[in-house]
Amino acid sequence: MAVPATSLPPLLKDELDIVIPTIRNLDFLEQWRPYLSPYHLIIVQDGDPTKVIKVPEGYDYELYNRNDINRILGPKASCISFKDSACRCFGFMMSKKKYVFTIDDDCWVAKDPQGNEINALEQHITNILSPSTPFFFNTLYDPYRKGADFVRGYPFSLREGVPTAISHGLWLNVPDYDAPTQLVKPAERNTRFVDMVMTIPKGTLFPMCGMNLAFDRSLIGPAMYFGLMGDGQPIGRYDDMWAGWCCKVICDHLGLGVKTGLPYIHHSKASNPFVNLKKEYKGIFWQEEIIPFFQQVQLPKEAVTVEQCYIELSKQVKEKLTGVDPYFTKLADAMVTWIDAWTEINSGSSKTAVANGTPKVSKSK
Amino acid sequence: MAVPATSLPPLLKDELDIVIPTIRNLDFLEQWRPYLSPYHLIIVQDGDPTKVIKVPEGYDYELYNRNDINRILGPKASCISFKDSACRCFGFMMSKKKYVFTIDDDCWVAKDPQGNEINALEQHITNILSPSTPFFFNTLYDPYRKGADFVRGYPFSLREGVPTAISHGLWLNVPDYDAPTQLVKPAERNTRFVDMVMTIPKGTLFPMCGMNLAFDRSLIGPAMYFGLMGDGQPIGRYDDMWAGWCCKVICDHLGLGVKTGLPYIHHSKASNPFVNLKKEYKGIFWQEEIIPFFQQVQLPKEAVTVEQCYIELSKQVKEKLTGVDPYFTKLADAMVTWIDAWTEINSGSSKTAVANGTPKVSKSK
Repeated sequence: MAVPATSLPPLLKDELDIVIPTIRNLDFLEQWRPYLSPYHLIIVQDGDPTKVIKVPEGYDYELYNRNDINRILGPKASCISFKDSACRCFGFMMSKKKYVFTIDDDCWVAKDPQGNEINALEQHITNILSPSTPFFFNTLYDPYRKGADFVRGYPFSLREGVPTAISHGLWLNVPDYDAPTQLVKPAERNTRFVDMVMTIPKGTLFPMCGMNLAFDRSLIGPAMYFGLMGDGQPIGRYDDMWAGWCCKVICDHLGLGVKTGLPYIHHSKASNPFVNLKKEYKGIFWQEEIIPFFQQVQLPKEAVTVEQCYIELSKQVKEKLTGVDPYFTKLADAMVTWIDAWTEINSGSSKTAVANGTPKVSKSK
Repeated sequence: MAVPATSLPPLLKDELDIVIPTIRNLDFLEQWRPYLSPYHLIIVQDGDPTKVIKVPEGYDYELYNRNDINRILGPKASCISFKDSACRCFGFMMSKKKYVFTIDDDCWVAKDPQGNEINALEQHITNILSPSTPFFFNTLYDPYRKGADFVRGYPFSLREGVPTAISHGLWLNVPDYDAPTQLVKPAERNTRFVDMVMTIPKGTLFPMCGMNLAFDRSLIGPAMYFGLMGDGQPIGRYDDMWAGWCCKVICDHLGLGVKTGLPYIHHSKASNPFVNLKKEYKGIFWQEEIIPFFQQVQLPKEAVTVEQCYIELSKQVKEKLTGVDPYFTKLADAMVTWIDAWTEINSGSSKTAVANGTPKVSKSK
């Protein structure tokens, strides 16, 4: 039986925000109500700021459109993408909570093989509150799960694990394929429920999807930057990938864990592969050089905070990837701007941040 | 529905041997008959050579006891463990086939969640015949499985994968725990069927269990040495772990893949944790130094065959692990002896090998 979010430790109600990049279909919030309504929502409207998003009664939320972002960040708003779901990272910056869960509005409550609704948020919290094991592979996967443990041959000194920074959830129904694969396999649906959570090993990169993702903001927040995508940029659909590559090398450097697997959401809508191809095609070339770049990145020992790591990474991006395309100079600069903005918004009390921006807060509960 | 082994590509009937370290319960072969009987068995008797193992009618097999091993290998027989299931690697050496599946005699046919019998061997063959993806993590796991593919953000240049050398299967019911965990959780049973196969990423070590294991002998055979365990040795229950560490660093060096996950077998019997503790306790200390050793091993570019890699590894074992215990000098020497014996047995025609040993072959089919 699905456990409603209200049975979670109450502590987390005050420690977690839900960040959503626009909401095109309000049924989305209705379906998720039992699971999401106990938490505060931060909605970052990715398109036309004159459009009004009506959030159903019973939700506690704040909503930012482009005008708000410009007003709050001033010139630094240039680091936030426009007309692209990459803008969601502005919500990560504005949150004052320890944990963030971000989900797309075409993701619905999935069912497990027994037909029970899956409380995705609860599983993310479970993932994040238990340690990760990036230094050695456990063949029974997450050793902290009920009914599992470390297997024979697992070093005892590694069994305490490390803090988990990221919980990456998956998708039933429409899989997260690139445009070429969508074009080749338009009808393929993911029907395989893999009952598993695992740590992605140290030194291994992965394609992080932002559809169904939770993270510990206090551990990795400043690296959860979704880059420059969408309006005025030569690339799209690489926002979460970029964040994933940056986060993973920083987690590896700082000894933090990244988990993937459960929970599933039901991804309803395959986006248009022709539109996607246009957004992606540069990325498809570029990733052939970006990934080897991230695979060889070394961060200096002196970089001990996420911010320091991220600034160092921005320097290496500028130095090593500008040869791929001048876009990476712009991106590297935006990475620095992002950290400046993050620091400014998050260094004072939350009162200061609000004073900077007067976010539209609707307390409907 | 379980697919009987007879529906496999016939080619593989002549390309695969099944290696079993002794058989204490003949019901084992009866239960596996639909799946294993089309293949040739190599039984390596791990205990008293005067005991007679009666293999049921309908199986094509060869059987080696300690006297056979001594006669075939002469002084080099010192590298094969006595009174320990580690002796199974002698069967790997004697096989003339491309693929080997090895299974313990307390492993039974498992059932999937729908109640269908799992044809473990068929899944191993599927795993080994499809490529591995060690250089980048695919969040939908094995991209070559039906209904799956590479996800968005997976570099296209890596989508052909690399040859798979090892398929590591898992266990329902009694999990493969070490003695301390067995003592602490005597009643824990693995009931979670994880419908998944994945590549263990490059640079990541794992605890390889020999209970339910298949490999491509032509790709990795000479590294599948199960070390010096059992009678006269200070350690037991690390035979498969040792082979796993060695194989993984060599696979990483040579660009070969290791898969883990499906298939499951049903592991019936928890071995005695007190006996296991006695066998394991040195290993529990030693692995704290062995694993960092394997994590830092670098093999020279000039090592381009498994044999060359293994000899190089033996040198590093002697140099870096002898400080842990003098046992590692003996083990390093045995690694060299193993390669000498492997080369001798496998360099000539299979006729030569048989002439050396006159194995007891019973062709009952």
